[in-house]
Parts: sequence; C-alpha cells; structure tokens
Amino acid sequence: MDYFEESLKKHKEYSWKLETISKVPLKTREDLSTYYSPWVAWPCLEIAKDKKKVNDYTLKSNTIAVISDGTAVLWLWDIWPEASLPVMEWKAILFKEFWGINAFPIILNTKDTKEIIETIKHIAPTFWWINLEDISSPRCFEIEETLKKELDIPVFHDDQHWTAIVTLAWIINALKITKKDKKDVKVLINWVWAAWVAITKLLHLYWIKDIVVVDSKWTIYAWRWNLNVEKEMLTNITNTACILNPESKHCIKWWLKEAIVWRDIFIWVSAPWVLTKEMVKSMNKDPIIFAMANPIPEIMPEDAYEAWAKIVATWRSDYPNQLNNVLIFPWIFKWALQNKVPKITDAMKIKASENLANMIKNPTFDKIIPSPFDIWVADEVAKAVV
Amino acid sequence: MDYFEESLKKHKEYSWKLETISKVPLKTREDLSTYYSPWVAWPCLEIAKDKKKVNDYTLKSNTIAVISDGTAVLWLWDIWPEASLPVMEWKAILFKEFWGINAFPIILNTKDTKEIIETIKHIAPTFWWINLEDISSPRCFEIEETLKKELDIPVFHDDQHWTAIVTLAWIINALKITKKDKKDVKVLINWVWAAWVAITKLLHLYWIKDIVVVDSKWTIYAWRWNLNVEKEMLTNITNTACILNPESKHCIKWWLKEAIVWRDIFIWVSAPWVLTKEMVKSMNKDPIIFAMANPIPEIMPEDAYEAWAKIVATWRSDYPNQLNNVLIFPWIFKWALQNKVPKITDAMKIKASENLANMIKNPTFDKIIPSPFDIWVADEVAKAVV
Repeated sequence: MDYFEESLKKHKEYSWKLETISKVPLKTREDLSTYYSPWVAWPCLEIAKDKKKVNDYTLKSNTIAVISDGTAVLWLWDIWPEASLPVMEWKAILFKEFWGINAFPIILNTKDTKEIIETIKHIAPTFWWINLEDISSPRCFEIEETLKKELDIPVFHDDQHWTAIVTLAWIINALKITKKDKKDVKVLINWVWAAWVAITKLLHLYWIKDIVVVDSKWTIYAWRWNLNVEKEMLTNITNTACILNPESKHCIKWWLKEAIVWRDIFIWVSAPWVLTKEMVKSMNKDPIIFAMANPIPEIMPEDAYEAWAKIVATWRSDYPNQLNNVLIFPWIFKWALQNKVPKITDAMKIKASENLANMIKNPTFDKIIPSPFDIWVADEVAKAVV
Repeated sequence: MDYFEESLKKHKEYSWKLETISKVPLKTREDLSTYYSPWVAWPCLEIAKDKKKVNDYTLKSNTIAVISDGTAVLWLWDIWPEASLPVMEWKAILFKEFWGINAFPIILNTKDTKEIIETIKHIAPTFWWINLEDISSPRCFEIEETLKKELDIPVFHDDQHWTAIVTLAWIINALKITKKDKKDVKVLINWVWAAWVAITKLLHLYWIKDIVVVDSKWTIYAWRWNLNVEKEMLTNITNTACILNPESKHCIKWWLKEAIVWRDIFIWVSAPWVLTKEMVKSMNKDPIIFAMANPIPEIMPEDAYEAWAKIVATWRSDYPNQLNNVLIFPWIFKWALQNKVPKITDAMKIKASENLANMIKNPTFDKIIPSPFDIWVADEVAKAVV
C-alpha cells in the first residue's frame, strides 16, 4: 500500500472527521424555549449563584481541550499551527474512541510562552482538563508548570507524561525478558526533549540509577557549560559518576559512539539511521533498543537484531512493539475524572506503568506491552492506579 | 408546567448535551497508523507546504467558534463566564440542528477588551468563523471591528446582526399589515445596546428615516453631552429633526413617556413593565409594539392589544410572533460558506430581511414571520441572499 496516497486520500475523505453533535431531542417550539431562550436562563442563574454547578449543567465536566502551538509535531517539529491540526484532531478522536470523553482541538497562532499561557488561562472555563500537545522544549515546561499553578483544572503535557509512563512499562517488561536487574542496568538516552526529561525523572524514581544522557552534541555532565534549566536538572540524576568524581572519565565530552559502549538500554528519539550495527555490538549482552525516530527509526529492527539486540521497539505500526501512548492516556483520564484528582503524581505514574506491564503475563521479544486495541486493558489500568 | 423545575431537570439530564464524535471507522492497528501516528504526518506536511490546505484536511472548514465573555447574557447581563456556558452550548447546538455546521462553545475568563481580542486571535486557526455572543456594548464594537481587520476569517457579533436582520423582516411585514409606508413611519427605539445600534443602522439604510432613540436616561440628540462613540454615531441617523433645527423641540431631553407620543413603531429591549397602556394609547393609530424584555416583556401582549396596539411581538415562545434569531443565522452561514464570503455586507442583510419577510405570503397580526421549525425557510433565505 502507498501510505502517502492512502493517508492523504483518507484524511481528505474524512476532513470533517470530528463532529459536534447534540444528544438532546429538539423537535418543538416548546423544546426550544425550555432548552434555549428564554428558559436556559435558569441553569445560567444557578451557575451564577454557585460557579461549581457548571459541572452539573454543561459539557465542562466531560470535555478536554487538546492544545498545541505546532512547534514539536511528530518528527516534523516546528510547522504552522494549522499543519498540526490533523494530529490534534486525531488525539481528540482517540480520547473519544478509546474512552468516551469529549475532546476538542485548539491550535494556537502564537509561539510566545507568555501569550500561550494567557490564552489558555482565558479559554480554560469551558474545559475540565487541558491536554497540552507537541509544544517544544524547554517552553513546554514553563507553560505546563505555570498553568498547573494558576488554573483550578488539571493540566498535562501529553508528550512528556504519557510517553514516560508507556516507556517505563516497556522497560519493566524488557528487563523481565532479559533477566536484567533495574539496579544494575545501564541506560543511555539520546537527545533531550520534553518526553525524555519526564522519562529520565521517572526511571530515576523507579530506582534505575545509571543513566547517561547525550544531547545533540555530547554527554550531559555536571560541569558542562551553558546548559539550559532542564538539562541542568538532568545533571543531578544522570551521569552521577561524574558528580561523585569530577576527575572521572564520565566528565568528558563523549560522543554517542563512545557513550553507547557497555550500555544495556538505548532510548532514542533523535534522527533516522544514527545507530549503526557496530554501536549495537559495542553494548552489553542482550541489548534493548528503543529506535523511535519516526517514521524512519535510528536503526531498522532487522539490522539491530542482526547485530545482537534482544528486543527492539519503534513507533511504527508495521513492526511489533509499537510504542503508543494511546495505551495509557484515556485510562489515566478516566480514573482521574472518576476520582476528581487535580494532579497526577509520580507515584501514580509508576503504578500505572507497572500495571500496564503486568497485563502481559509472559512478555516476549515481540509482544512486550498490550496493543491499543486490547480494549480490556482499559479498566485494568484504571483500577490498578486506584 | 413549572418552567423553572423543568428547565433545570432537563439541563441536568442533558448536561453533556454536546458531544464530539468521530465520523471515521477506527477498527484496526492499520487504521490507527493511517489516520494517526505515523501517517497523519502526510496531511500535516501538505498543510505546512500550503496553509490553505488546512481547509481540505481538517474540521476547520466546517467549524464555528461560539465565543462569549458572559457580560450580556439574555436579560441576566454580566454573569460568570461559566454561567453563560449553557447559552453558548445551545447556540452551538442550534448551528448544528438547523443547518448542520459544527460549532463549539468557548467562554472567556476575562472582560478586558484587549485580552479578549488577543485570545481570539490566538485560537482562531482552528475555526472557519468566529461568532461572538453576548458581549456587552460598547466593548463588543471594538472587539468585532478589530478582529474583522486582523483575522482572515469572518467575525460576527451575533446579537447585533442576526437580531437586526430578523427585526427588519418583522417590521417589513408589520408595515404591510398596517398599510404604513416606510418613508413616513415614525420609530421609537428604547435603550441602546449592541443589537439596537445595528438595527438602527439597518432601518436607516432601508429608508426608514424618522427614528428617535431613548437611552436609559432620555432622548439621544445631536447636541447632547457626554455620549459614547456609538451613541454619537446614532445622532447622525436618528432624531434628524434636531440636526436640521437645533432650536426644535426634538433637541430637548424627552423622557420615554414624551418621546412615545405619535410614534408608529416601538422597539424595546429594556425592562419589564416600563410600557403602560396610556403610553400605547398616545401612539399613532395601529401601533406596532416589539416588547422584547425577557422573560417579562415591557408590556404584556394582552394589555397592549387592549390599548390599541395592532401587532405585538415578544421573545417569548408562549405568545405568537416570537422574535428568534435562530430564524436567520444558520442560513446566512450556509450561504456564506458555500460562496466563501469573508464579510456580510449591509446590502446582503437587507436582502435577507426582505426574503425572510416574503416567505409569509399573507402576514397577519399573529403570524408575521416563519417559525424556526418551518425548516423550508432554510434554502429559501439562503437562495434569496445569493
């Protein structure tokens, strides 16, 4: 199948893919006056008296905003906000399809951090949850943190947290298959963007302590100059051998090729083809490879296996082990809604990862975590987090 | 029926009244990869290359934003933005029910004119049309005018324009019934808010030249002090006897009771009970009364008829002649969409009014214009405007 032609054809056919539809029978003049003018005034007045009642009388309590400025879309990075709209529409559809919550896409015609924060604060009253999407790092951190503080509804940067939860689930089962211990395992993370800051924090909290991060230049280490705030934070929880001993070999500029030697796990969303068979061969026995550049991974799974990779995952649906955050987000939302949780804590995230991992009783190299269509996952994950 | 209880019960039952629903069959992993990650990237790239293609691949070309800050809601005026959400949801539903266009309500957590303008500019790329709702005057004028200049999509302040078009249609048929000539007819407009500035302009363009406007104090006339910009504008097209002759009796402070004498038409959205039988009796023969305070009109229709009113209209659905802008807006939108019109001109509005009026072949005092459920109206109006 020609994916290019097929995708464009289908997206055009379903351009009006997301409809807003009324659930209310509206047949007579009487209906119109009850629901709309003049008697819609009664619920308005009830809410005017007690703002919380907006949850009883409107769509607010079942509606998520999927918001992006189009600066970190898939592997396309910074494109027109308009060009990010198909992704946001689909994210909204997935909320509905995989869980039943209403979601509406909003794309922002500004890249200014302050303007984004102000705009979202101003439109927030319609929504029960703000789901930030594909906003580039490090702006996404400031935006998410500020909104969390200033709004009374949950705010979540999708890329960071959902991806982190699914990735940890994936790693939990990969360790089971390769019989490696989380306390000893050596992780290399390539390139720093929003999701990998979140996953690095989560791995650290899960007690995986030997993590080295390489950005688009070289290793991040405690004494390196000119790091931004987020990378500076990473120096506290990664490459810790350098912190303990500034004279060590860990405190030098390592290129990817040097940093990869003797590592067990490689997590990548960087660029196509940057990983060679030789690099995989330089790793510890039974390497675990997340080659997640999209649509062309850092190394093709067949090449990685031909070296001596034990498990390979990608973001592609035509290979096994597709990492897909559809797996986790609807159920976290469902659970949070049911329990009126204003914030998802790190402990909740780890619990969600563990339970997602445990859903596969006997994980194998080509079936590590459930597929998004294993719908039975839903309640299991939600229940488990509770 | 107890409208209060019934309305609250129904609004609670259908609190999630507006759903976002996918039209796309999503069954397999293959579907997911075609529509979402990774191949959603193709339509994204097409739009990134040519921004206009957002209309081919997304919901934008069929989606309206219904936006309010909750400052002029029904007769409740300035309430929490949250408290205006039921009205905005219903307006969105009416767009769908009476025409089939998708619409989504956005309520704004700010009353600052500049912030409102900025916020709407930032969220505009998702939408094909911005429908401003229930924003108080005179802020609504600046907001609408600025957005019209700065956005490349249509912007319309609902209250002003739809109401003006329907009111003119109503007046056209009322003149037919009472056999009065538009060139001679004397109009009194009571209280100035957004819609009545628009209707005054439209009546003037339709060649009804003798219009007197009374605000919450007294008549607006050319030499009156301390008028705001919009009222200042009204002095050019109303109470013109005063402009021609500053010494005339038209250039004095008239209270409503004095201004109403010898008038033919009274248009009101002011306050309940302000119109007495005596005032109606002081009017010209066969008075035409629009008593549109909501839910209690300026005078009850039975009292107005008992004086010597010929035709009475209200905004209530339990009396004949309910003035309802549902009558007009979906078809104007439909026609504008089909013809890719970026702006609705005054000439188009008058044409729409005339055609709406002509749909009733033999108007009578209790059936002046069609009801919103006379669905056949739809295409007639749309065609007519073309």
